[in-house]
Amino acid sequence: MGFPANCTFPLTKTHTAEAMLVHDLTRHDCIEFLTRKRLGRLGCARDGQPYITPFFFAFEADALYSFSTHGQKIAWMRSNPLVCVETDDIETPQKWTSVVVFGRYEELPDTPEFEASRRSAYALLQQRPQWWEPGYVRTVLHGAERPLELVYFRIQIGAVSGHRAMP
Amino acid sequence: MGFPANCTFPLTKTHTAEAMLVHDLTRHDCIEFLTRKRLGRLGCARDGQPYITPFFFAFEADALYSFSTHGQKIAWMRSNPLVCVETDDIETPQKWTSVVVFGRYEELPDTPEFEASRRSAYALLQQRPQWWEPGYVRTVLHGAERPLELVYFRIQIGAVSGHRAMP
Repeated sequence: MGFPANCTFPLTKTHTAEAMLVHDLTRHDCIEFLTRKRLGRLGCARDGQPYITPFFFAFEADALYSFSTHGQKIAWMRSNPLVCVETDDIETPQKWTSVVVFGRYEELPDTPEFEASRRSAYALLQQRPQWWEPGYVRTVLHGAERPLELVYFRIQIGAVSGHRAMP
Repeated sequence: MGFPANCTFPLTKTHTAEAMLVHDLTRHDCIEFLTRKRLGRLGCARDGQPYITPFFFAFEADALYSFSTHGQKIAWMRSNPLVCVETDDIETPQKWTSVVVFGRYEELPDTPEFEASRRSAYALLQQRPQWWEPGYVRTVLHGAERPLELVYFRIQIGAVSGHRAMP
């Protein structure tokens, strides 16, 4: 790999270039964006180490609903319920929308108390059936079928922020 | 929103469904994937709260190079250098590849000591010029131009893991 011998930009601190307009989204705009999206990235943290996985969700009433098989993500969120969800539309580095949620993990266990919430999650997640066909929840890892028990959860939305950039 | 009255799947724990094969990627496969990708999500954490932003990067040796204007992300990574980078190709919930890096934030300050690293970062980031045109680094936020001073950094890759799912 060659380094440009006369490289001065953007190593210098001043330059003239086309502007990219970045503006904040209102909470209403952020919620509208979350309502339309299904794919996001879920971040959790343990002992200062963040961990990100892609995940699919459905929004309803100040919460994002999802489910997962057991694994590292669930273990970490059980030990620290502070999570972050990021979802975006990125066309180019100059044209994008990104919404970030700071939220709290809340499990929806398979008990009578949470049955209504689990049904709600399931119904929401079914609204785009092509994304939620049964195959999603039956996986084979290392040649062995993974446990089929699912963990349903929701992320209670706390702070939400969003930005949109335009060339 | 209606809840299905007779909804039993996937609320039940057993079912028969098509399998999705999920297999681990080798470290070599993960690195090859990182080499091809430019867009990822960068996670940092402060006081147990994770924070995710989309970011663009370039891989070389055992590090991911990038830059950013000043902001929350940089402040958090300065206070806690433990970060996570996730990058993926997601076609459907049944067909995807995801690679996760646990790494350490390392700033490349504008000093003689780091000039070579900054040149390296710049050259790498220029390899797909359509993603790195100057407009990216000049932004207008809240009607005021943001400071143009850029923070160059790299993520030193520690653990890396990857999974690929196929229907």
